[in-house]
Amino acid sequence: MTTTITNLAVRDIRFPTSRTLDGSDAMNSAPDYSATYVVLETDTPNHLEGHGLTFTIGRGNEVCVAAVNSLASFVVGRTLEDITSDMGAFWRHITTGDSQLRWLGPDKGVMHLATAAIVNAVWDLWAKTEGKPVWKLLVDMSPEQLVKCLDFRFVTDALTPEEALAILRRNVSTKAIREKEMLENGYPAYTTSAGWLGYSEEKVRRLAREGVAEGWTYFKQKVGGDIEEDIRRAAILREEIGWDRKLMMDANQVWDVDESVANMRRLAEFDPWWIEEPTSPDDILGHASIRRRIAPIGVATGEHCHNRVMFKQLLQAGAIDFCQVDSARLGGLNEVIIVVLMAAKFGVPVCPHAGGVGLCEYVQNISLFDYIAVSASLENRVLEYVDHLHEHFLDPVVIRKGHYMPPQRPGYSIEMHAQTLERFQYPDGEAWTEDSPTQEA
Amino acid sequence: MTTTITNLAVRDIRFPTSRTLDGSDAMNSAPDYSATYVVLETDTPNHLEGHGLTFTIGRGNEVCVAAVNSLASFVVGRTLEDITSDMGAFWRHITTGDSQLRWLGPDKGVMHLATAAIVNAVWDLWAKTEGKPVWKLLVDMSPEQLVKCLDFRFVTDALTPEEALAILRRNVSTKAIREKEMLENGYPAYTTSAGWLGYSEEKVRRLAREGVAEGWTYFKQKVGGDIEEDIRRAAILREEIGWDRKLMMDANQVWDVDESVANMRRLAEFDPWWIEEPTSPDDILGHASIRRRIAPIGVATGEHCHNRVMFKQLLQAGAIDFCQVDSARLGGLNEVIIVVLMAAKFGVPVCPHAGGVGLCEYVQNISLFDYIAVSASLENRVLEYVDHLHEHFLDPVVIRKGHYMPPQRPGYSIEMHAQTLERFQYPDGEAWTEDSPTQEA
Repeated sequence: MTTTITNLAVRDIRFPTSRTLDGSDAMNSAPDYSATYVVLETDTPNHLEGHGLTFTIGRGNEVCVAAVNSLASFVVGRTLEDITSDMGAFWRHITTGDSQLRWLGPDKGVMHLATAAIVNAVWDLWAKTEGKPVWKLLVDMSPEQLVKCLDFRFVTDALTPEEALAILRRNVSTKAIREKEMLENGYPAYTTSAGWLGYSEEKVRRLAREGVAEGWTYFKQKVGGDIEEDIRRAAILREEIGWDRKLMMDANQVWDVDESVANMRRLAEFDPWWIEEPTSPDDILGHASIRRRIAPIGVATGEHCHNRVMFKQLLQAGAIDFCQVDSARLGGLNEVIIVVLMAAKFGVPVCPHAGGVGLCEYVQNISLFDYIAVSASLENRVLEYVDHLHEHFLDPVVIRKGHYMPPQRPGYSIEMHAQTLERFQYPDGEAWTEDSPTQEA
Repeated sequence: MTTTITNLAVRDIRFPTSRTLDGSDAMNSAPDYSATYVVLETDTPNHLEGHGLTFTIGRGNEVCVAAVNSLASFVVGRTLEDITSDMGAFWRHITTGDSQLRWLGPDKGVMHLATAAIVNAVWDLWAKTEGKPVWKLLVDMSPEQLVKCLDFRFVTDALTPEEALAILRRNVSTKAIREKEMLENGYPAYTTSAGWLGYSEEKVRRLAREGVAEGWTYFKQKVGGDIEEDIRRAAILREEIGWDRKLMMDANQVWDVDESVANMRRLAEFDPWWIEEPTSPDDILGHASIRRRIAPIGVATGEHCHNRVMFKQLLQAGAIDFCQVDSARLGGLNEVIIVVLMAAKFGVPVCPHAGGVGLCEYVQNISLFDYIAVSASLENRVLEYVDHLHEHFLDPVVIRKGHYMPPQRPGYSIEMHAQTLERFQYPDGEAWTEDSPTQEA
């Protein structure tokens, strides 16, 4: 019996988060966390569906919706079995099969975000068909099956299929031990909840204290506004969390290269573990220069790193200490796996970007796969956690003592409640009509 | 008296070029050259309009149209004088002023293509208001005025405003001499007309012979299909053009890094002047590696180089011999000027990408500015020319003995005939309804 994808439905879903300044940082002053939400409908008797989303922060989500529609023909009418029998070929096809569409990237921006929503929906459908969460689908695959899901174009100078196989085979025999460990203890996480720029001192203190009480040991602070203010808030956070817990900083791309170095030298007194996105996400050589000049403070980036070719170079150039792969900025899970394998080869820990809406749900699957099947290490690895919007998911993340507990429900953990999709549909859903909020710039 | 932009109108214009295989190459087998075409309407008594376009190759043009609409509020309601009084601030505002939209890039892909259409339309409007073609508007500006048009964010580690001023001041006193020279002799060009992959041997020979007869001395061949076929066609071209004329090769991104080196070592016997886009346009370190290993063959890239940060690194890494800036891939003329100035600092010649539809019309303005006001050199500089679709423009390029003759009509040379806009509107225009062509993948 085969599963034919009979239709692709796409929705513009937006949450009015700008009203509370949740998610405010130096570059993104007032985001409305949003999703270009894809449902792949099938002809199965039980109406099995594949769900996937790409994350945006509000305006422009409609452009991603248009992009998804332009790509729909790559999946509609195909069978799941046809796609999954050669997932690597499918991925190459959707990213390069229509050269007219490829021109709009390639492999970047709106088209790549849209690709992620569709590709991840296929993974969700596949995992549901197998009756497993995505992380378990991946860890149960053989190295050969996994490598067949990947397209190595443009990265063979850093990672060949043979090298990928060798990395995956290294820890095969001990997978079961790590799987059991994860089911018992979960995957270590850190919190950004206390660190947003828009919060008052009182709110920062309260959230930091609550975080400590809940067992968090890693905290992240947004920087990149006024440097004196950054220093003041770092001092407050250190007062609250002490010096044994880790403090990370995130500048969200606002500095130039030399400015990053100057500012981090001032913030060094607060012992930051890493500086995240100090400058343009495209500046590989800039990150390498910053890293050399502010050691031992680590450099982290990735949430805006748009494809495997950019990650390849960040690794080749020795530009990063932490690889913050994003589950929807890259063209879906296939490309994420390539980056996870390259990071393993170069010995750089993967600490996925999360937050927004749905990103925590996605990335727990990635980090579980990374630990169980690839790196077999938790050293310098923490998964971002933000306590926003989880109530909208059928299978929301479960955090216990600062750890992500592995999801059990089949799929990519990304399916939203039907009533959420109704209520937050933009611009017609009740969330947007009843309070008549403005969506103007 | 001020000029207020009262409306932005955007059209989806497509030319069915895939029917003839014009423009076929190793990556783009059947493009339909297209434009997301912007008109800025104003309140002037003579209905002055600013026209601009971004170039695509067919499907997905509707996504760029959606992106332009998402950006319209940055110009509608503003006065031209307000914008041009601080063009650098305007450019930063349209690329980063709405952080929700910036998330979709930043500075890349569909959103940046859309930005180019609008920004270039502002330049067209400005030049028309001044009664000059854009190149003349630029060369008549003082160094201070020019630098005020630029946003140096993310490039100050390679080029400061002070360095930009120094570069522009270097050749100020001799601008008039070079302007006269250009008006008399034009700017040297090369032709890709004979080299498309889809053409038969007979057609290649005929077009090469015609090119020689017309006075062309630079020819470009598409490569990257079957290597034996590439070799066979290189031999044919050398037979027709001899060994004194230059032969360039263009792989349109189909090779991996090591594959590029291997293939170019085989093609070296035909003495290629450059290899263009050997691999992923994002692979700065890859281009640097290829360049080191195939010298003295030059490396050229840029038509898919999506912003100034990428060009900065190509220059810093010593990855390119030729800088092929694109007039619509970058976010419009302001960003192009930054790249031209960085290339001047690093001593790399600028040979803009052209062809498609409207790109030749755009880039003649860039190269004239570069020669007259920046580099003051023609060494290793040639401007791409493709003999397609010029009949649709009010002010089509004029080629004389392999040289672009400077346009005289006010504006950015990019305005299309009203009947073209009617006829090639997609999907309703007659060009798309009368022959019922298919636009399916």
